[in-house]
Amino acid sequence: MMQPSIDLLFHALADPSRRKIIERLSRGPATVSELARPLDMSLPAVVQHLQLLEASGIVTTKKIGRVRTCSLDAMSLSRAEQWLNERRNAVVQRLGRLGEYLESTQSDPKK
Amino acid sequence: MMQPSIDLLFHALADPSRRKIIERLSRGPATVSELARPLDMSLPAVVQHLQLLEASGIVTTKKIGRVRTCSLDAMSLSRAEQWLNERRNAVVQRLGRLGEYLESTQSDPKK
Repeated sequence: MMQPSIDLLFHALADPSRRKIIERLSRGPATVSELARPLDMSLPAVVQHLQLLEASGIVTTKKIGRVRTCSLDAMSLSRAEQWLNERRNAVVQRLGRLGEYLESTQSDPKK
Repeated sequence: MMQPSIDLLFHALADPSRRKIIERLSRGPATVSELARPLDMSLPAVVQHLQLLEASGIVTTKKIGRVRTCSLDAMSLSRAEQWLNERRNAVVQRLGRLGEYLESTQSDPKK
């Protein structure tokens, strides 16, 4: 299976209603109507957000009878997290090396 | 200073050209024209991406004479990373507890 693009992953995360859905699902699976209840929007609007979350890979859904249950895919969140972590580590390591270099070039008054 | 919204942070990350700029800056500060060189777009388009990255807090810029130098703000990347990490941890912990519960209810054939 092809992984959804990281563009779509970050786009899905950029909306406050979608992040609320993610927060709710981080506490356990929920049906579409359970997800809609605390959100101040129509059911079709919630379904649209869920479709985007599903396309991004963050949410998986399963329909049993007439009830669709949604779950969070921790691996998808991890992909976005890792992208950020790698870039941040590059900065931190570079600044660390720069600090070491500056220390090494500083004259020690005791020597 | 008010922190830029996390909406804007994730929105800034959702574009491949902006992520290329972030990757370049993770290796060290760069001028606007250095950032533009590997990107297949006009300078005004690059400047527009940089303005969004600056508004999101991910990039800071400093103008000395006529040259604007851009740097990456590791703290901003860390904010987005932490948001993802907290939700992912909630899922992982919940699944862990579920696993323990299932183990505890399983009958042990040796007993």
